[in-house]
Amino acid sequence: MPSKSLEELASFCKRRGFVFQGSDIYGGVKGIYDYGPMGVELIKNIRRHWWNSVVYNRDDVEGLEASLISHRKAWQYSGHEDGFSDPLVVCMKCGLRMRQDKMVDTTKCDSCKASELAPPKDFKLMIGLSVGATEGELNAYLRPETATLTYINFKNILDCTSRKIPFGIAQTGKAFRNEIAPRNFLFRLREFEQAELQFFVNPKTDMEWFEKWKADRMAWWTDIMGIPAERLRFTEHEQLIFYAKAAFDIEYKFPYGFDEVEGVHNRQDYDLGSHTKAQDEFDIKAKVRKNTDSTAKLSYTDPATNETYIPFVIETAMGTNRCFTAVLDNAYTEEDFGDGNTRIVLKLHPRLSPVKAAIIPLAKNVPEIVAMAEEIRKSLKFLGTGRIMLENSGNVGKSYRRHDEIGTPLCITVDHQSLEDKTITIRDRDSMEQIRLPASELRDYFANFYRTL
Amino acid sequence: MPSKSLEELASFCKRRGFVFQGSDIYGGVKGIYDYGPMGVELIKNIRRHWWNSVVYNRDDVEGLEASLISHRKAWQYSGHEDGFSDPLVVCMKCGLRMRQDKMVDTTKCDSCKASELAPPKDFKLMIGLSVGATEGELNAYLRPETATLTYINFKNILDCTSRKIPFGIAQTGKAFRNEIAPRNFLFRLREFEQAELQFFVNPKTDMEWFEKWKADRMAWWTDIMGIPAERLRFTEHEQLIFYAKAAFDIEYKFPYGFDEVEGVHNRQDYDLGSHTKAQDEFDIKAKVRKNTDSTAKLSYTDPATNETYIPFVIETAMGTNRCFTAVLDNAYTEEDFGDGNTRIVLKLHPRLSPVKAAIIPLAKNVPEIVAMAEEIRKSLKFLGTGRIMLENSGNVGKSYRRHDEIGTPLCITVDHQSLEDKTITIRDRDSMEQIRLPASELRDYFANFYRTL
Repeated sequence: MPSKSLEELASFCKRRGFVFQGSDIYGGVKGIYDYGPMGVELIKNIRRHWWNSVVYNRDDVEGLEASLISHRKAWQYSGHEDGFSDPLVVCMKCGLRMRQDKMVDTTKCDSCKASELAPPKDFKLMIGLSVGATEGELNAYLRPETATLTYINFKNILDCTSRKIPFGIAQTGKAFRNEIAPRNFLFRLREFEQAELQFFVNPKTDMEWFEKWKADRMAWWTDIMGIPAERLRFTEHEQLIFYAKAAFDIEYKFPYGFDEVEGVHNRQDYDLGSHTKAQDEFDIKAKVRKNTDSTAKLSYTDPATNETYIPFVIETAMGTNRCFTAVLDNAYTEEDFGDGNTRIVLKLHPRLSPVKAAIIPLAKNVPEIVAMAEEIRKSLKFLGTGRIMLENSGNVGKSYRRHDEIGTPLCITVDHQSLEDKTITIRDRDSMEQIRLPASELRDYFANFYRTL
Repeated sequence: MPSKSLEELASFCKRRGFVFQGSDIYGGVKGIYDYGPMGVELIKNIRRHWWNSVVYNRDDVEGLEASLISHRKAWQYSGHEDGFSDPLVVCMKCGLRMRQDKMVDTTKCDSCKASELAPPKDFKLMIGLSVGATEGELNAYLRPETATLTYINFKNILDCTSRKIPFGIAQTGKAFRNEIAPRNFLFRLREFEQAELQFFVNPKTDMEWFEKWKADRMAWWTDIMGIPAERLRFTEHEQLIFYAKAAFDIEYKFPYGFDEVEGVHNRQDYDLGSHTKAQDEFDIKAKVRKNTDSTAKLSYTDPATNETYIPFVIETAMGTNRCFTAVLDNAYTEEDFGDGNTRIVLKLHPRLSPVKAAIIPLAKNVPEIVAMAEEIRKSLKFLGTGRIMLENSGNVGKSYRRHDEIGTPLCITVDHQSLEDKTITIRDRDSMEQIRLPASELRDYFANFYRTL
């Protein structure tokens, strides 16, 4: 039972410290958010499990973290400077700015319904910068995606690793688009985060790798993020962008319907072909702009066959904020016990939970109980699983509710009996069942619970 | 024996995939760098160990990850918009732009030695942005530090955690300054990264906490980053900025001399006092600008005494790129064996090493040896320690040298004897000594080696 609406989820996220509106004490900036104490742990867990799956658990992927500010020329040759814009319509009566392709009725203002609309113009989505001491000159952009920074580093990475095709380069990080109308909570943002893999293949094997990655990525969403298969689907792009040979979206069923959370694309040789020098030496299949600035050949020579070619790119591009939203939405559960009592519980997979365990002294004014709880916290916190919290509010029921809501899998309570027989109780978040265990066995129980995550 | 110069280190960093010049195939952008396959692992390890120490291993710190784009008003009230600039001097003969306070001789051009210099003017260090569909209006900035974003979230975090003073808020992330003259490799950058803690205290206990954090942070540099104490020192600020009560830098001995890698500051109530609404209700000690825009009271009421006050801030502000540079410089070692042979070895603490183990088949054309190496890699890679690499170059000596240079603590070699008696050798990076072990014992050996990190 996911959330009823993104509005409900956004309000929950603020209350429980997952997400705040960016700069909110100054009125906020639309489409920009901050991760609070719980959100920062969840987003870190998502990033880490993506990196584990795409880099550490494989043998054919290298990592990269490129800069957010990048040379203007990179975005000229990528095609973004000319092509990356949305059609903007301004209402001449009330001043509302609208994306033409998202308007309810393109002949009337979405707000005041006036029909006096300025003719649509291209609104640039990239945020331009003037970097260095020459004022006013546009010479750089905040990157609108990570992928281009991966392509322009292709030779650097080949040189320092001696990789052979096929291999991939993984990158996570921020990207920026000056959206006209940010919307749907963390779905369409001006500042967002991506987790993108560019996998470089021999053109003869492109569709084979495309299918492999399509399957791999869907398996990650179900097996690692814990999203049920029925809330996910593939949607094939009806119209392919000119350089693409195949493109599928992975979609998650948000409260308002299915929407894209990741794309898997066969981009052919468009990217390395666009950014390489000496384009004429290669048989580039995609239509690329003539590059007179690049200083590097982005080709590959097969050491076995001596064949030189521009590799094809299979890309998997995930919106990390979208993943965050989907994971939270899927975990959000309101339970009605039928006796007038309800609870909200975040049924996150324990590997994603922001807090790994809460240690709760039953009474906050019994020093021996508090001391024992602190002792237990200490024994668990150095196991390297993540946040362990001591909840010394003196109200066990309130602590359970709080930790149900932030998705803490285990609550460990120290009570009067604990002082006598050195046992503690462990409460399971989902079943709410409690077991009593000798405190001496807790460390192993805990390590074992998180070992397989 | 650290590196001889930052130039030597920069060249090593490119060759071994730690750091590349940003956008280098298009001529680069000064003061902007990309982390390559090895660099991304090292920077992640530094970030993680900072977060472990400052958040997970304590009971009094919450995490935050705020946006990079932030409201213009935040930087007006923080004092940055008016005050955050460097004095720029332009040579009227050759056009060179110089920071006046860094010029060799303020009456002559640093380059052409002409004395025709334009009068100095304030050059703004913040990068301004126009966000949203209104073109050309400066309404936001790329943040020049993380701290201000922490202050303006103070109430959000208080509300969602019910924290009591003293407590802290930790944040890592990018920040941007339009430096006139980026220099010293990763030391003075235009796009950089910080790891900052803002610790909120009762004004009566400020210096006590200041001293605690000063000691804690220095201990982190020696005990967790593994830098010898003699390469670090404290330097007290001679001139305090107007709102500060105490300020020390932690300095590392770079090849060119001691320079700042972290600051510990008692900022008193300047920050929360600057960003709070209803300033008149509080007895703000620092001189703050009148705030007519903030919508939140950034004060604290002690539940025990009912006393309401603006907390003081003890800040620890680390330059993550500077830490990265210091750690690499300290680890960089050229060893001369006296017999004409030398090696470069990166004596990183194993917890910081980008690759945790290399598995090396002695012969790349003996399928049984390669299969056994792959088996071993598989058994280690799911232990969650980080990157495990299979080095199937067929050249063991070359593989050892490569892994010495990137700081891999353990090289595990599979040879002909391995096929007969199911043993492998483990080579220690620093001593270069090898031990032979039954392959069945390797997993435990490895898990134990990394357990205590």
